Amino acid sequence: MHTIREALNLILQHSRYPGTAIIPLEHTLYRVLAEDILADRDYPPFNRSAMDGYALRSGDLKDSNSLKLVYELRAGDHFEPRLQPGECIGITTGAPVPADADTVVRVEDAASAGSRVTFSVAPVRGGQNIAFRGEDIRAQDVLLLKGTSITAPRQAALAMTGHTGVAVSRLPSVAIYSTGNEVQPVRKNGPPHHIRDSNSYALRGLLQSYAIHTPVHDPVPDDPAALKRAFRKGMQADILIISGGVSRGAADYVPGVLEALDIQPLFHRVRIKPGNPLWVGVTPAKNIVFALPGNPVAVQTAFKVFIEPFIRSCLGMPPLRPYYFPMNIPRRKRTAFDEYFPVVLHGVDKHTRVHPVAYNGSGDGIAAAHADGLALHPAGRETLEQQEEVAFYPWHHWF
Amino acid sequence: MHTIREALNLILQHSRYPGTAIIPLEHTLYRVLAEDILADRDYPPFNRSAMDGYALRSGDLKDSNSLKLVYELRAGDHFEPRLQPGECIGITTGAPVPADADTVVRVEDAASAGSRVTFSVAPVRGGQNIAFRGEDIRAQDVLLLKGTSITAPRQAALAMTGHTGVAVSRLPSVAIYSTGNEVQPVRKNGPPHHIRDSNSYALRGLLQSYAIHTPVHDPVPDDPAALKRAFRKGMQADILIISGGVSRGAADYVPGVLEALDIQPLFHRVRIKPGNPLWVGVTPAKNIVFALPGNPVAVQTAFKVFIEPFIRSCLGMPPLRPYYFPMNIPRRKRTAFDEYFPVVLHGVDKHTRVHPVAYNGSGDGIAAAHADGLALHPAGRETLEQQEEVAFYPWHHWF
Repeated sequence: MHTIREALNLILQHSRYPGTAIIPLEHTLYRVLAEDILADRDYPPFNRSAMDGYALRSGDLKDSNSLKLVYELRAGDHFEPRLQPGECIGITTGAPVPADADTVVRVEDAASAGSRVTFSVAPVRGGQNIAFRGEDIRAQDVLLLKGTSITAPRQAALAMTGHTGVAVSRLPSVAIYSTGNEVQPVRKNGPPHHIRDSNSYALRGLLQSYAIHTPVHDPVPDDPAALKRAFRKGMQADILIISGGVSRGAADYVPGVLEALDIQPLFHRVRIKPGNPLWVGVTPAKNIVFALPGNPVAVQTAFKVFIEPFIRSCLGMPPLRPYYFPMNIPRRKRTAFDEYFPVVLHGVDKHTRVHPVAYNGSGDGIAAAHADGLALHPAGRETLEQQEEVAFYPWHHWF
Repeated sequence: MHTIREALNLILQHSRYPGTAIIPLEHTLYRVLAEDILADRDYPPFNRSAMDGYALRSGDLKDSNSLKLVYELRAGDHFEPRLQPGECIGITTGAPVPADADTVVRVEDAASAGSRVTFSVAPVRGGQNIAFRGEDIRAQDVLLLKGTSITAPRQAALAMTGHTGVAVSRLPSVAIYSTGNEVQPVRKNGPPHHIRDSNSYALRGLLQSYAIHTPVHDPVPDDPAALKRAFRKGMQADILIISGGVSRGAADYVPGVLEALDIQPLFHRVRIKPGNPLWVGVTPAKNIVFALPGNPVAVQTAFKVFIEPFIRSCLGMPPLRPYYFPMNIPRRKRTAFDEYFPVVLHGVDKHTRVHPVAYNGSGDGIAAAHADGLALHPAGRETLEQQEEVAFYPWHHWF
């Protein structure tokens, strides 16, 4: 049986870049850059006043505390001539500092009367209150790397540099099927021994973090012919995700049906809890198929551990990295596998701690709903100590 | 001048619940529950087999290692009669364990021949491999509290409990206006002393974390009549957000224009860096107006510190809480204000550390684009020490 790392390596070998699309800037949030973004010019594009005040030559204030006011410059406008000795101009925040002026004195530190301005600060440091041309970034330098996901401040930087259309990675198509005779659509009130399909919603919601939108299909019963019909359709998608029917039970037809559809298995079973019976294969058209066990927390864990890294790889993103926080209480485990468990982040006296939620095992979707994400109890460790830093994966990643 | 806490208290007094809407389950991701969600029945709804195997009375295996196989039960079906002494049934994961059976033995630990099953494990613990009815949650207990934002696992829990329509908080309407003669629409290539509007995109993107979608308007020039026209329209929204024109410069018309529109100021200026000249007021219809300075990092900081908490309060959400991580390097500051600074999270040898990005002050939108979020250097502290835990605010909050 493979370790998580071995299984993930096999999976990632089959990631495939889905191509590039140019989309309007307005629609780019959470999308992934398909090209390096360069600065179109220096930023700031000019020596920019960082204050409302007066632009002047700092040396002029060594001998005198008063200068001749020759212009009132506002942001959006510019002052063409070089500033002459003994002169100053009024200037607003964001306006270009004229040539030969080397400093801006705040309006609070000056008083103007007619065409004279008297300054109450001396000496004045050259360069103060000026954001110099190119100090944030130089023209043609890389602003954002290919593979970067677009947060709001990155969208703002794309706007600033004039990108009305942005080249982003296309999104892989994804099909989701829940299986099982006991699994009913949410709209139906079945008998007491039936349950409603929640896995389709969990997977669909987790995919939305990557701006991937997929429809919800009705669950497929444990009937080889029905499963075959559904999967034949689903395997046209870049990624097919199935839940249920992959273990050793009498009604676990999924691996057999997939192999009958010429889907080559990469592996079956991984040293992970929950979600050990995971089956992954590749279609003749080189699309990938993830067949997950049916329990809700196993599905959500498999998404975070296997499917999300695969999607990031397809999109050209860097690998998913966890955040490390200390455990609030110790935790023991009995299996020899890597164990993921649902946790909340507690604020404890200005520290953030990982705290396990009450949890009855992989069928306990209620625990997952109460949790902020998953933490990892690594294979080799019987006990996680209080205060030990552990890897935390939020359900919805930041970037 | 107010502290951040004082200013925020004044702001939050004007938060107003925008009402409730019932929306389809499929559209609920990142929305906020407007009512407590109760469990519609016990979960698990029946004593559920957690394994593929045989359901039996554990006491029967004390005297014998073989039992009579009376039925093969699959998930989605049920076995009506009570299990009699000496009997067992085959059972699949997810199927209801029959009355008087108290344990499930894994298929791997048994061998069947005709109507007899022989078990290779003994003794057998009562209760093993069964998820008991109601152990995750009891019927009518609260599953999710009002004010909870809907993550993917929560959407799955809503599906599981049959919520095809969900009562969520309506979203406040938001209008955004950038101002300044130097500020041009992204589509225009202006002269060198002009800049493109990035603040509208930053604000719009940050609002999308809360599923709030707003259009981008063209920037408004520093002309009192034009500003008045724009703000008169914008103040119809629940929340009007303006950037630029709020300081002491000759072209800073915004506060005057807002007051001429009968917008009552709550305060002007806060002890914060960046973004000190923040102006906040309330319209006669009790809508709120945030007038922010024009520099990009000041705008993004004001959103995280003032606007996002206001929106969460309107939606009935708990306050925004930072995450605490240790500093990777020390940091000094010179002002007496609370200072927010852009940072990345570094993974350092299985620890997560906050690392400041190179930053030239509030005009440096490039630094914000490189950052994962903001960290806080509190007012009273001249130096943040290496390894000291600091408050971190990701640009896009997790939940």
